Amino acid sequence: MGNITIRMLAKELNLSTAAISKALRDSHDISASTKERVLALAAKLNYVPNPYAGSLRRRKSKTIAVVIPEVANSFFSIALNGIEAVAIEKGYHTLIYLTHEKLAREKAILQDLQSGRVDGVIVSITLETTSGEHFRALASGQVPLVFFDRVCEEIETAKIITDDFTSGYNATSHLIECGCKNPALLSVSNSLSIISRRLEGYRQALADQGIKENPANIILCGNDPNENYALIQQVLKRKKRPDGIVATIENLTTEIYQVSEKLGLSIPQDLKVVCFSNLATVAILNPSLTTITQPAYEMGKTAATILFKALEKKSFLLENENIVIPSSLVVRHSTVREL
Amino acid sequence: MGNITIRMLAKELNLSTAAISKALRDSHDISASTKERVLALAAKLNYVPNPYAGSLRRRKSKTIAVVIPEVANSFFSIALNGIEAVAIEKGYHTLIYLTHEKLAREKAILQDLQSGRVDGVIVSITLETTSGEHFRALASGQVPLVFFDRVCEEIETAKIITDDFTSGYNATSHLIECGCKNPALLSVSNSLSIISRRLEGYRQALADQGIKENPANIILCGNDPNENYALIQQVLKRKKRPDGIVATIENLTTEIYQVSEKLGLSIPQDLKVVCFSNLATVAILNPSLTTITQPAYEMGKTAATILFKALEKKSFLLENENIVIPSSLVVRHSTVREL
Repeated sequence: MGNITIRMLAKELNLSTAAISKALRDSHDISASTKERVLALAAKLNYVPNPYAGSLRRRKSKTIAVVIPEVANSFFSIALNGIEAVAIEKGYHTLIYLTHEKLAREKAILQDLQSGRVDGVIVSITLETTSGEHFRALASGQVPLVFFDRVCEEIETAKIITDDFTSGYNATSHLIECGCKNPALLSVSNSLSIISRRLEGYRQALADQGIKENPANIILCGNDPNENYALIQQVLKRKKRPDGIVATIENLTTEIYQVSEKLGLSIPQDLKVVCFSNLATVAILNPSLTTITQPAYEMGKTAATILFKALEKKSFLLENENIVIPSSLVVRHSTVREL
Repeated sequence: MGNITIRMLAKELNLSTAAISKALRDSHDISASTKERVLALAAKLNYVPNPYAGSLRRRKSKTIAVVIPEVANSFFSIALNGIEAVAIEKGYHTLIYLTHEKLAREKAILQDLQSGRVDGVIVSITLETTSGEHFRALASGQVPLVFFDRVCEEIETAKIITDDFTSGYNATSHLIECGCKNPALLSVSNSLSIISRRLEGYRQALADQGIKENPANIILCGNDPNENYALIQQVLKRKKRPDGIVATIENLTTEIYQVSEKLGLSIPQDLKVVCFSNLATVAILNPSLTTITQPAYEMGKTAATILFKALEKKSFLLENENIVIPSSLVVRHSTVREL
């Protein structure tokens, strides 16, 4: 039954294919009674319009794309739910593309999207993305483009972010208030704006509390869990090792806890830990983890809301603005101050 | 620069649009020197072919779709990585569609896919899916279809599964060997084949160890964390409460741990717990969690490999077979036997 075509409908009803096509598009050229006959047969035979032909004509795929680094990360999986809540309400499909943190993948996906497959695009960039050249074609007004969380600052469009500087500042100040004299920051990028802002917040907190910054305490981790484990172990084995850690991404949590256990360091007595994380399990870790909890769902929802506003107004050039939704520090046992 | 069309190339080179189109498709009708001129200009102007026009002609989108319930679940996010590893190697894009466990969404997505947007489809069905009618059009040979993990048994095609009966059996036997006399099973569906098999394994293990089955110990949880919390609390407050739990999905872990803490039940002394889970944090939970670890990456990779084999052979009707990749029981502290 799947392959019913306009031609088959035309033959069955003794009409031209043009007439069938117009009837299906509810054209004024076709009488109401003919439209009724066509629609009844189309329904009976389970006729499915070819989306490509329709798109050529209308340029309306009723589909948006979300381009993100990965889904094995609770921030992105929760943000996706926020995006989809809006898209479903608008009757749109959401296509999710994963870049796996590779710039080459991101470029290939953007090239693919440039050619009209979707009506709008929401992006969070890779760790490797340092320039926005590959976003220019879309951002020039062909298809509306919204960034969220990891944004490309040089591209002028709407960007949904959280207060990364304040979050980095609050996480670090909290460690110092709980007794840390030598807190370290685990970074994952030297280029990503959100990570740079968290680092700036860390630095400002040190300065405000009169702690001299030690460059060796700013540690660049990567994507490989085993390499991160080795790196964290090396840091925690130092003579003058850090007594606190701000981890800028949730994926470092397991390695921090496992290295601490291996080295006989007790959290929070010997090492206090705060992670940027939206994991559901943070409350049942050993010990429960103090987090910067990002408004992932709200950020996704806001990104989609702005995208659909542009689609509805047909003004595809979005205003260059930063919309900031604040994160919160949630204190748990991994940063308890000794009495 | 984005909107370069065949018409513009034709005008610039003083050729017909048909000649440009043929040159771009490397047609024999066009001379080598003309082809060279066309390709050089297309490259210079960054011409992007319209994928819809191309698809109409070739019906080859170089894209596969993955239709899954959610990504806030480590099994699916890891399986996706396995699928994408294969797709990227083949030069394909992967579109991810989320059903959010809703049958209506799954049907709408399948309807959309039926019309030729992608070359192949990989599916894991929703908790609500009890019939496979909406898969028939695809499975009839239009587009190759592979199921993984949560399969639709009535549809004849390739299905990548794990050994759910054995896993349910092993999890339950392990609890009994560690001293449990009254183990419960937390289910999430009465219809999903994988959950039914895990339940059958649980029942067989009880029978083999001479424990009489108590219907009240088979508990149907849902999708809402708060409702699950309330339900688990009710079960663990019973006079003759379970002394062990097999949780058939990872999303119940946080609620089990939190209810236990609230009721003053110590894991593993008062309650032993084993969960089907692929979470990275299971080793650092309080206590670390004994799991049935599913071969998520391998299952995704195998599903994609079989799909691409069909695409390459152009035999879109896949053999009706179950490919079983075994899971493993990983023992940690949540099931330690008292001495």
